[in-house]
Formats: sequence, structure tokens, C-alpha cells
Amino acid sequence: MEKLGQNYKVISCGDIQSLGRVVLHDTLALTGAEVSVNELPAGVSVPFVHTHKNNEEIYVVLSGKGFLFIDGDEFEIKEGDAFRIDPKGERCIKAGDTSSLRFICVQAKANTLEGFTETDGLPAASKPSWL
Amino acid sequence: MEKLGQNYKVISCGDIQSLGRVVLHDTLALTGAEVSVNELPAGVSVPFVHTHKNNEEIYVVLSGKGFLFIDGDEFEIKEGDAFRIDPKGERCIKAGDTSSLRFICVQAKANTLEGFTETDGLPAASKPSWL
Repeated sequence: MEKLGQNYKVISCGDIQSLGRVVLHDTLALTGAEVSVNELPAGVSVPFVHTHKNNEEIYVVLSGKGFLFIDGDEFEIKEGDAFRIDPKGERCIKAGDTSSLRFICVQAKANTLEGFTETDGLPAASKPSWL
Repeated sequence: MEKLGQNYKVISCGDIQSLGRVVLHDTLALTGAEVSVNELPAGVSVPFVHTHKNNEEIYVVLSGKGFLFIDGDEFEIKEGDAFRIDPKGERCIKAGDTSSLRFICVQAKANTLEGFTETDGLPAASKPSWL
């Protein structure tokens, strides 16, 4: 399923419980953030430590367990954890030795969000068939 | 579990398969995007249609089925679908009549992302114990 309108685009990524890395920026023509769905198989690490020039990263762990290295700290992360890493944070993520790690990662330029939800949303007059 | 460092914050949201709405902006002190985990119970709709002043919204459906109203179009959305809605899009989401709908929603100011991944990332010299 793919749908495209003047103000939207919808795609199907597939089985969210088992798909590999899906990078949404290009497919959805994103302009405010990059969003990816990621899986590290058991025992696998991102093979390098990195920082960012401008982007804050926000992670939500969807399933599994793993480890986060951040600025010299190392600790376990698991399903249901969420975390923010500032651009300068030196980071690396590894899946657990016996557990894969599935997570969503958002990249957005730090300090660009001016408002959200009530302070950015506006009511609209149109109605769906069910309201 | 909650961990706070100079360049990061980690929290546990709980059971990602069953938790209600979790809004991460304030908890994680986000500055580039708002990220929320949401569940609409079966038959329940967001009770209004809305647009945004500045924010692009990016959704990833984690489980279940539902319906999206967008600019007069209506169609089914389901687990594994991802979509972008531009600020001016008039939108409303409803869970299916017999299925809840669990999704992640990202709000980020449209046209603020300058680069991502390879064009924003930088290698760092530090190493975790496992590399």
C-alpha cells in the first residue's frame, strides 16, 4: 500500500516485528526529521562510535535487549526504554549476546522545535465520516 | 531505570506492547522533536481534526489496525505502515472497530533537517569495551 496526497505520503514497511533496517527519510520525503526502524541481531554492534554535527537522536526500544555506550558509560537497554542523545554524545549500540535489539531512531536538528501538540496544533473544520 | 549524563537521558516507559500514551518531550528534555507512543483502544477516534502551525508529523504503526482521515481521504492503516503528514494536512486517526491501534508519532518543525546519518554523523575516537 502506498498513498500520496498533497500533504501526505503513506507506505507499508512490512512486518514491524521482523523487518531489517528501514530508513524513512527518502521514501516519505521527510523534511523535519529522519526516522528509521532498526534491528541489530544478537551479538551485533554498530561497528563504530559516532557523534553528530547538529542532530539530537531520540531512541525508542521496541523489543529485545542490548547495551548503550555513551561518553564512556556502558549499561543495558531493553524493550520499553527511550533515550535522548545530544549531538556531542559519543555513542555506540550493541544487541545483547543472546537477544536481538529492535528500535526506532529519530534524528532531528537540536533546538529547532518551537512548539508541539497544543502549542503547534490548530483545530480544523473538516470531519471524517466517523465524527 | 533512569540515567542522566551530560549528553543523554534514558528512561523506561514500561511495557511497549501495552502502555497507554507516553509523551517523551518533557521527560527526556527533547529539543529537536516531540516523540510519543500512543494507543487508541478499539473503536476510539481522536475526537477532532487538526493541522499544525509548523510541525511535520511522522507516524509508524506498531500494531493493530485503524483509519486515517487526511484532507478528505479516508483509508485503512495497519501495523507496519509509516506516514508523513505536512503541517497543513487536516488529519484524524481512529482505531479499528475491533482492533486497537498502537503507533509512534514524531513532531518536528518542517524543513529544519539539514543532514542525517552520513551527512550529519562524525566518527569518534572513544571505544566501548566490546569493540
